[in-house]
Parts: sequence; C-alpha cells; structure tokens
Amino acid sequence: MDNKKTALSELGEFGLIKRLTKGFEINNKSTIKAVGDDAAVLNYANKKQVVTTDLLIEGIHFNLMYVPLKHLGYKAVTVNLSDVYAMNATPRQITVSIAVSNRFPLEAIEELYAGIKLACQNYKVDLIGGDTASSMSGLIISITALGEADEEKITYRNTAQPDDLLCVSGDLGAAYAGLQLLEREKELYKANPELQPQLTGFDYILQRQLRPEPRREIIEILAEKNIIPTAMIDISDGLSSEILHLCTQSKVGCSIYQDKIPIVQETKDFAQEINMDALVFALNGGEDYELLFTVSQSEFHKIKSINEISIIGHMSDKPENIFMVSQSGTAIALEAQGWKAI
Amino acid sequence: MDNKKTALSELGEFGLIKRLTKGFEINNKSTIKAVGDDAAVLNYANKKQVVTTDLLIEGIHFNLMYVPLKHLGYKAVTVNLSDVYAMNATPRQITVSIAVSNRFPLEAIEELYAGIKLACQNYKVDLIGGDTASSMSGLIISITALGEADEEKITYRNTAQPDDLLCVSGDLGAAYAGLQLLEREKELYKANPELQPQLTGFDYILQRQLRPEPRREIIEILAEKNIIPTAMIDISDGLSSEILHLCTQSKVGCSIYQDKIPIVQETKDFAQEINMDALVFALNGGEDYELLFTVSQSEFHKIKSINEISIIGHMSDKPENIFMVSQSGTAIALEAQGWKAI
Repeated sequence: MDNKKTALSELGEFGLIKRLTKGFEINNKSTIKAVGDDAAVLNYANKKQVVTTDLLIEGIHFNLMYVPLKHLGYKAVTVNLSDVYAMNATPRQITVSIAVSNRFPLEAIEELYAGIKLACQNYKVDLIGGDTASSMSGLIISITALGEADEEKITYRNTAQPDDLLCVSGDLGAAYAGLQLLEREKELYKANPELQPQLTGFDYILQRQLRPEPRREIIEILAEKNIIPTAMIDISDGLSSEILHLCTQSKVGCSIYQDKIPIVQETKDFAQEINMDALVFALNGGEDYELLFTVSQSEFHKIKSINEISIIGHMSDKPENIFMVSQSGTAIALEAQGWKAI
Repeated sequence: MDNKKTALSELGEFGLIKRLTKGFEINNKSTIKAVGDDAAVLNYANKKQVVTTDLLIEGIHFNLMYVPLKHLGYKAVTVNLSDVYAMNATPRQITVSIAVSNRFPLEAIEELYAGIKLACQNYKVDLIGGDTASSMSGLIISITALGEADEEKITYRNTAQPDDLLCVSGDLGAAYAGLQLLEREKELYKANPELQPQLTGFDYILQRQLRPEPRREIIEILAEKNIIPTAMIDISDGLSSEILHLCTQSKVGCSIYQDKIPIVQETKDFAQEINMDALVFALNGGEDYELLFTVSQSEFHKIKSINEISIIGHMSDKPENIFMVSQSGTAIALEAQGWKAI
C-alpha cells in the first residue's frame, strides 16, 4: 500500500477542489454547468425538482475508528439519495462541502471522494458544486441532493389515507445490528489492541451499516407496476419514528403487526448473541434507508406480488391510535424512541 | 434583556426544527413544498436554475467573540445570495443546516435564525429545508442557495473577451478594514477587559464586515439598461484573486489602473491609523461581496452613467499579462495573495 501523505496546505483551496473533483463525469441532461463558477446551472424544464440536505459530523454521525473513508463518502451520498427516492423522484445532482482539520492528508480526502464518486457513478448523479473549509476538530460533510419528479408521482408524508396498506421495502434492524457489532469490536480493541476484530459471519449487517444502498429499484418496480404510493418516507430513524411522522402529518392512525416486520436471520442471530431483541433494532435502530409507504387497498394484489415489499399493517381514521399488535395479540402504542404497553 | 436559557436537549431535533422554522413565509411561486418532508419540492419550469453552497465554521470563518449571532445568520445567507447574483440570477430558495454544541442555548440559535429570517425577508427567498446536528465543538452553518435565471442572461466566469471593460460595483477593502478593527479591539479587550471597544467613526467598515449586502440592485440596474455582462464573479477573496479567476478561466489578460480602484475615505482613514495601505485591503482583503464583471466596449456610455459602478481596466488577448498600473505608471503583476513588482 502506498502510504504517501500530502499535506492539504500544499495544494491550497482551489488546488484541492480541482484535485478532488477531477474525473467526475456529467450524466444528466439537466446539468448545464457543474463545478467551476460562482454557482452551478441546471435545467429542470417540464419537471418538478426535489431538494434535500444532510450534515454529517465526525464523532456524532460516524466514527473514523471503524468507518473506512471510502465507505463514509459513499454513505454520505446514498443517505441523501434515499430522501430523494422517498419523494418518488430520481436523483440527478449533488453538492458536497467538507471541512477537514490538518490531521487529514490529501490521500485520506481522496479516499472519501473515491466513495463519493462511486456513489455518483452507481446512481448516475452529477457532482455540481461544494465548498471546502478548514475545521478546528473533526471531519464535517454537508451534502445537498437534487432530483427530478413528475408532479403527479411525487409522494409526500402527509397524504396517507385511512384503510391504506402500510408497506416497507427490504428488511429492518440490520444496520443498527452492524453498528452494535462495530461498537463491540471497538471496545474490545480498546481493551486489547492485539486483538483482531471478529466480524466473520456478519457480512450482511456490516454492509448495511457501512455501505447502505438507497432503494432505487423499489421506485422502479412501483413505476413499472403503475403503483403510486399515497404517502412515503424513508426509514432513517427506525420504523417507529417514521410511522409516527406519517401518521401525525397525515392525521391518521395505524396498526402494524409484529410478525409482519421483516427482519433477516443474521440480524436476529446477532441480537441474540448480545442479548438484545432484534425487534428493538427494527423499531428504533435507524439507518435502514428502506422505504416506508402507504398504498390504497385496491393495490393489494399488485403489491403482494413484489418480493422485496412487506405489507406490515394498515392505516386508520383514529390518529390517536398508533399501535403494534404483538404476536400474542396485544396492542402496544408505538413511540418515537420505543414503545410502551397500554 | 431577557436572559432565559433553554437547553437544546429540552426540544429534541424535530422540536428544534419546528421552532426555528416557524414564521418563515413562502415568497416564491417556484416553492411548492418547503420544510417538512424528506425533500422540498420546487418548480423551475421555463427557467434555468443556479445552485451554490457555502460552509461556515466557527473559529475559521467567524469569531463569536465579536460577531453577534443575528448578524452571523444574516451574513451566512447573504454571502450565498451574492454567488447567485454573480450568475446574473435571482435567488429564490435556501436550505440551512446547522450543527451546534450544547453550550448554545435555544435562545442563541433563535438569534441566529432571526438573522436568517431577516435576510430571507429582505431578499425574498424561501427557507425550504435543512438539517440540525450536534457538534463536538463550535457552530457550523451550511447553506445552499437556489436561484432562477434566463438562459441568455446567465453570466459565467469563463466568457470575458479581449478588449472588454472590467467593472466593479461599490467600493473595496472596507469589509477587511472592519475585520482588522474588530481584531484590534478584541486584542485590547483581552489585555484589559475593563476597556470599552472604540468603534465610533467606523460605522461603515463595521457594517461591511458584519452585515454585508449582496448587490441585487446592480443586477437590477444592469437589467433595466439592457446590459448583459460578458463575464461576472463576486468578490469574496479580494480583487486580485477574482481577476485571476476571470482571466484564467476566460484565457484573457487584464490591465487595471490603481487610481480607478474604488476605496472610500473611511477605509483609507482606518488603514492609515493602523499603518497599512488601503490598496492591500482592496486587492487581497476579501469579503467585499461586490460584483466584478466585464462588458463589451460598446456598453461604455451606458456603464459610465451608473453611479455605483467603476470601470477599473480592460481585458487583453495576452493571458500571461495580468497587471495593475500604479499611479506612477509602473505595471505590477497581480497575484492571488498580493502582487509583485515586475
């Protein structure tokens, strides 16, 4: 491995931007002018545009002790794209601003940008601008994503209807399980730096934590099947919290069924290993970046035929009732940070 | 004065966002959905869009010892709007992300947002989204501004032509003079906290540093007079640096005349007081947020009649010659961080 370390100060701000943005290709017709002027120029004629932004802070949102910089760059982009897909839209552009302290050599920042570039390539989005700054302490990443949508297909959070089916893509809780695994290994390493981390057998939960993929294919399948969700949100803070957003903003209630919540075996196995309940990971863990959406009951047969989607419950006209029905048949009130027996 | 201090933790993230974004009005037809969903929704049909972003870090870009939070909020917005105007475009929306440590009470963050709101009102831009996060140390502000432009009026940096006139709005060096004044008073205060800061007589340079206004009216005057600059950039890093950007990107040279550089008396007076040359402030000081642009010579009479614009030189077909002609007639090569005699 090449351990060359170049101080950022050798390049200066403009040199750094030039170096980092080199090799990024433009994929979209809507990008007229990308990096290099006071502002980028876009053309969204005939389309609506969605805009979302995220701020990631070292020590709060990520820990460089176990997150490789390339994965971090990839994830910083994909979590923003997840918000675009949650509007039933297609991401087209991103801006990326970073602040770094001098402890980062150029090569580290290039690793970060290699991940950003890979995400841009995989999801065909254009890097159109950004800012670089010095930071007094850790690494800071601010990303804004722009996407395009047809007006009649945009899905908001506040338009779920009573009796709609509540659906979720993929599986839940795995990313949080991955985080717990990394935290456990970090603590063991701190206690004994000679120890090699024990990560084998947990590839899936690690990948879900370190390299989440936004659910583009779900948006594509829904489009193919002519299904427009009545409401949609992405799951970044755990299923409970997102269900509460949907219900509160749509002024509806909801019942979900515990045994319908999709959790894979690896997540369950790891939860058991650390004496936790995988259901907690799913309800409150966060960072799943799956899509949670409602559809009219008339779409039942179409939805039922899609492998990657689980129907986990239905909405009601009682906003005060937001329940999970347990396997034993007990109704439990969902709360943002957990649930409580009623 | 009300000294009530509310811990941010009392509100939680969603409570904080709700509180901070309350009372922001929507001014623009292009804003379909602002804060409150996975993403904002915009409509730029028939218009081109410009996008620019800035990251501001406490201790690097601002010092809370002498910058009131309301001014900081105002400035954080207006410096982004300046980039939009520099494209000959009209700002319409902003996203604002902040990271704060626990040392900031809610009331401090509300002060910051009061400044952001005032800037939104003054420039008729809509707050459409953002993110809030915890910070390990200081305050971090990331703003993205979106604006609309007619395609034929967008002004880039790389389209200046040989023989074009080089023009600048307003006056230069005052913001840097204001910064030097604040720094001087900070040092005196640190040496003797009993001392009251001596700021009287320097209102203009202080205001230019603390509360810069982007040059909307210049864009409006140019539109009224049917002048489309051949190239434009805003002056954030000092006149020298911006001239070099224009010349390098447009592959042209430039001669400017020292005695044409607009510097007001107050800036000169303060420079003299601290034994500095006001010309240095203008060439390298930064944060002027004036517009630097080129126009065809055929526009000379129209430009000449505008009070707020100075013609400071002209472009040439010799990219290697980027000069300032001194009062004594000597040509001096401009450099990004200064100039040197040749």
